Amino acid sequence: MTKVAILGATGYTALELIKILLRHPGVEMTALTSREETAPVDQVHPSLIGRISLPMENLSAKEVASRAECVFSCLPHAASAAVIPELLENGVKVVDFSADYRLHSPEVFKKWYEVEHPDANRLGKVPYGMPELFRKSIISANLVANPGCYPTTAILPLTPLLREKLIESRDVILDSKSGVSGGGRKPKLNYHYPECNENITTYNVGKHRHLPEINQYLSMAAGTSLEVIFTPHLTPMDRGILTAAYAKPARTNITQSEILDVLRNFYQNEPFVQIVEHLPGTKEVAFTNRCHITARVVGERIMTISVIDNLIKGASGSAVQNFNLMFGYEETLALL
Amino acid sequence: MTKVAILGATGYTALELIKILLRHPGVEMTALTSREETAPVDQVHPSLIGRISLPMENLSAKEVASRAECVFSCLPHAASAAVIPELLENGVKVVDFSADYRLHSPEVFKKWYEVEHPDANRLGKVPYGMPELFRKSIISANLVANPGCYPTTAILPLTPLLREKLIESRDVILDSKSGVSGGGRKPKLNYHYPECNENITTYNVGKHRHLPEINQYLSMAAGTSLEVIFTPHLTPMDRGILTAAYAKPARTNITQSEILDVLRNFYQNEPFVQIVEHLPGTKEVAFTNRCHITARVVGERIMTISVIDNLIKGASGSAVQNFNLMFGYEETLALL
Amino acid sequence: MTKVAILGATGYTALELIKILLRHPGVEMTALTSREETAPVDQVHPSLIGRISLPMENLSAKEVASRAECVFSCLPHAASAAVIPELLENGVKVVDFSADYRLHSPEVFKKWYEVEHPDANRLGKVPYGMPELFRKSIISANLVANPGCYPTTAILPLTPLLREKLIESRDVILDSKSGVSGGGRKPKLNYHYPECNENITTYNVGKHRHLPEINQYLSMAAGTSLEVIFTPHLTPMDRGILTAAYAKPARTNITQSEILDVLRNFYQNEPFVQIVEHLPGTKEVAFTNRCHITARVVGERIMTISVIDNLIKGASGSAVQNFNLMFGYEETLALL
Amino acid sequence: MTKVAILGATGYTALELIKILLRHPGVEMTALTSREETAPVDQVHPSLIGRISLPMENLSAKEVASRAECVFSCLPHAASAAVIPELLENGVKVVDFSADYRLHSPEVFKKWYEVEHPDANRLGKVPYGMPELFRKSIISANLVANPGCYPTTAILPLTPLLREKLIESRDVILDSKSGVSGGGRKPKLNYHYPECNENITTYNVGKHRHLPEINQYLSMAAGTSLEVIFTPHLTPMDRGILTAAYAKPARTNITQSEILDVLRNFYQNEPFVQIVEHLPGTKEVAFTNRCHITARVVGERIMTISVIDNLIKGASGSAVQNFNLMFGYEETLALL
Repeated sequence: MTKVAILGATGYTALELIKILLRHPGVEMTALTSREETAPVDQVHPSLIGRISLPMENLSAKEVASRAECVFSCLPHAASAAVIPELLENGVKVVDFSADYRLHSPEVFKKWYEVEHPDANRLGKVPYGMPELFRKSIISANLVANPGCYPTTAILPLTPLLREKLIESRDVILDSKSGVSGGGRKPKLNYHYPECNENITTYNVGKHRHLPEINQYLSMAAGTSLEVIFTPHLTPMDRGILTAAYAKPARTNITQSEILDVLRNFYQNEPFVQIVEHLPGTKEVAFTNRCHITARVVGERIMTISVIDNLIKGASGSAVQNFNLMFGYEETLALL
Repeated sequence: MTKVAILGATGYTALELIKILLRHPGVEMTALTSREETAPVDQVHPSLIGRISLPMENLSAKEVASRAECVFSCLPHAASAAVIPELLENGVKVVDFSADYRLHSPEVFKKWYEVEHPDANRLGKVPYGMPELFRKSIISANLVANPGCYPTTAILPLTPLLREKLIESRDVILDSKSGVSGGGRKPKLNYHYPECNENITTYNVGKHRHLPEINQYLSMAAGTSLEVIFTPHLTPMDRGILTAAYAKPARTNITQSEILDVLRNFYQNEPFVQIVEHLPGTKEVAFTNRCHITARVVGERIMTISVIDNLIKGASGSAVQNFNLMFGYEETLALL
Repeated sequence: MTKVAILGATGYTALELIKILLRHPGVEMTALTSREETAPVDQVHPSLIGRISLPMENLSAKEVASRAECVFSCLPHAASAAVIPELLENGVKVVDFSADYRLHSPEVFKKWYEVEHPDANRLGKVPYGMPELFRKSIISANLVANPGCYPTTAILPLTPLLREKLIESRDVILDSKSGVSGGGRKPKLNYHYPECNENITTYNVGKHRHLPEINQYLSMAAGTSLEVIFTPHLTPMDRGILTAAYAKPARTNITQSEILDVLRNFYQNEPFVQIVEHLPGTKEVAFTNRCHITARVVGERIMTISVIDNLIKGASGSAVQNFNLMFGYEETLALL
Repeated sequence: MTKVAILGATGYTALELIKILLRHPGVEMTALTSREETAPVDQVHPSLIGRISLPMENLSAKEVASRAECVFSCLPHAASAAVIPELLENGVKVVDFSADYRLHSPEVFKKWYEVEHPDANRLGKVPYGMPELFRKSIISANLVANPGCYPTTAILPLTPLLREKLIESRDVILDSKSGVSGGGRKPKLNYHYPECNENITTYNVGKHRHLPEINQYLSMAAGTSLEVIFTPHLTPMDRGILTAAYAKPARTNITQSEILDVLRNFYQNEPFVQIVEHLPGTKEVAFTNRCHITARVVGERIMTISVIDNLIKGASGSAVQNFNLMFGYEETLALL
């Protein structure tokens, strides 16, 4: 039985995480922290009534460390890296949902997040929590940087194609559509029901904070520095991300079945990545830890279309997948 | 050409009002007030770009009176009645969207709105802006109390049945379902997209502020004091209210066609009230000033089902209907 | 390991059932039938890709019986009872999703379903699959009549109040709101996206086929024949039913806490029924086998408000709950 | 007063057209045709109750011609061109909603619509009903080919940029998102509420029938033959199309303000096209005949983002705009 704490337990990713962990036979949740809420968690989230009723507490890192062997940090960026070092020093393993340990360069972090990194020395040494690409490092890690939701839909389909030199590294365009839960639980006009219902909009065009993360990991896959164009859209639905990626073929005469074969081959043993023939929609992976990917050749472009549930494969599901690897559980436990 | 000002022009009812008035050949909008916004109105509401670009201004009652012959007040309760007397003294006619002049008793007002009424002397002398019932008083009024959205769906179907003694005044149950725009434009957790999408909830059961207004006008129709049971629901859609009313027949053997005939007779000359045979849905009246009503006899109950667009027939459309009456325009102008 | 077959496996309840059974450690799915589809089930439902790929087959009862110890029948009414007798004769246990064995009287069945009952002799001898009320009979049954979705939201809150004589049996009004998945997977204009999105409507007012089922089981609870008024609404969301019930207190001075105590007491050991203080919304039980219930005293009425996921607690979840009881598994297995 | 008939009056574009024409002071609707429906139009579309109650009739071209000076044809492709010649011969002017007269080449038509063109001789001589580009030809035309909804969102933003040589003609990528009403009123699994609610999918990737139309008119703008990549998405909302276009700058150092200036200049006198600074969403133009366009420079791409209401600016609104031009009415009549 692994004792687990969740930092910043009021948000949607934490709620989803709690629901997954309730199904995990190896987990005992021992602490839920919040700086604002003090009520039991099932008062904040009535979907938890009858399932878990831990109080929300404002705990120090030391107090958390005394109660938990593993911490899932759902704190905002910078806040997360401010507390994680002390947790690690106290022998706690951490899965970090924030962006704090995803980027390798403190300068890039500062440019995009507009704050000095609180734990810059550790950057570049923390594995990115995408087991399909970095399983080995995750297994032996004390700290894992859980991926962003959009990056998951970009890195999974494009990494094999870049590694196999099927697509060029330049001029990759990512047109992504996300459900509104990706914006978090804090009420804002953007996420006010009458504003985003019956509406689709782009936002943060060319400057979304997931962009440097996408660039970093696709550059690693390509073996050369690349910069994608990334356009996120806010879509009137709760959950899901669909990313249409438009890439240039690296040589002529590449066929759809060739691309699908490369993808299938790459992910053949992966429990949560499926290469499909049809055009996938977000709903078919909603409420699962799965990613469905297909590919098409259209004109002079290779397209991939990938779908995930932004809160599960894009956040809490992959966090538990990482936890399972870090603690020696079956990787798919609580996730099927 | 009538000069018109709108107080509290940032909200959804004001936006809807502006759109209707843009189609009104007799109206010139001369002032839009806000205590917070100073931007042009089409920056606040991008749907107005290319249509109207008046600035939002923080104006005194006197300044407003100097610019307008008619004021639509979309201010919150109490704030509205705090400024309306001065407008009236300056010869301005007012359509008030707030609840301030709907109730006849200052005590009832205080009980439900938890504040002393700022202009209590005027209560009971202001016509309720429901032309189907109070057209004559509206025509000669300087101030009209525009009805609430829920009350419109209760008072229109039940008034003829109460007047004709087809239903009893006791034990009337109103089960109402509203779109989210009824909650206003201010972000709150309740109206946060991921909270109310894919969700239906009751709220303010037995204590919604529209209850005394419903009771007052249905009591007038019944000729005796009555108290309904009223259950509002928040429904995952932008617009519309559907109210299912359950009333006791006042005598035996009342048939559906008898009820429909009474309703048809009562509303036969009304441009915006239709008695229909089918079970109406909110969508068929969305974006119109119309109310569709049907009736059924079910077991030992008479049911009426009524639908409106909460922002139009439930607010801004009827406000313009009142304005047309007060200023001698064709009643349906800009509303068809 | 229990071998399980599903009849009529193309619909939404079957899909939901398959997803639950995939999590059940004691179940092996061995046959999925369809009269129209022959493709593997994951081609019909892409959400099953990588999880199960059984073919859809057009099998006789005998063939099904040769493969399965338990059959879940998701066939339409009359079609289900036409095949179940042969399954039972072959020693197969059956959970029937259709209405075929819910009603006790062949005459009532014929009146509402407009067809002669194919297996009338068995009526009245089949337990209703609501473990909270009929657990003992279910445990020893070979055939269970799985409840309708609406009836679940009516019978669970009202049964304790009728049994304890807190409410009168006459003049009970049920105003119910359901998501669209309740209408099934077959495309019809009513369920066409642009027709039901941004719309709420009543339908089948006073004549929904779940009415006799509600009346029958509430009459049993009351110990006297009763007839409720039942108004279903189609609500623009996928899943969920919220039922507001309006009942007359059987005596004066009944308080909200008294009612809640009776309900809490009645359901204190039930894993899937929670009596809550707040006003529950459908979303808090979506994708779970749970029912949340609260109560209010409003004017001269006692109200209960109950919410379920129509496809889970209202269909496939309770079916698995029944299966667990019939086959000696932990009742909550695969359902938490 | 112009007498107007609508062919194929049961669908959503016809309904929208009727609503607009009801506001048009110069129009009298004299005939509505349908091959299936015979009920009055307000029985088919309850939103028309109290507004218009013409019967649906199965009329020959000759009969239609005897009643109307202008015909709006909402018939399917090939069916429309089968009847239009006879209407024209009888002196009737026609606005055709189908694709029949949009393409200039009978071969291209046959390739994409898989049927021989019934009136091939007229191809290439019929103006495309986009007044912003072809106003002069429309004014003098007897037949106008009303544009497709997706093409409107592609051609309006990109034409000025191609004409001014700001973007290259090759490697243009169009990523479009449409509401479900674009799929028509006929129930299909794709448009079944539980299938497309809470879902976003691509469809017809690389082979949507609007593609040749987009290519043809963008080629005209570019002065050279081009082929775009076009990816339509089905988005869970009723109305609206948002198109993100990714084009290569034709030279270096083009700035966002330069592009916006070119667009503003091009459309400065257009009543329905607005060049905006913010990132527009579909909701801000819903239920209007407007198109909002913005532009961004992102990495090595010029992006335009354009939004319309697919049923109005993408169909019935522009049809009335064309009608106004053809019959000498104020172009914006009934459309503001």
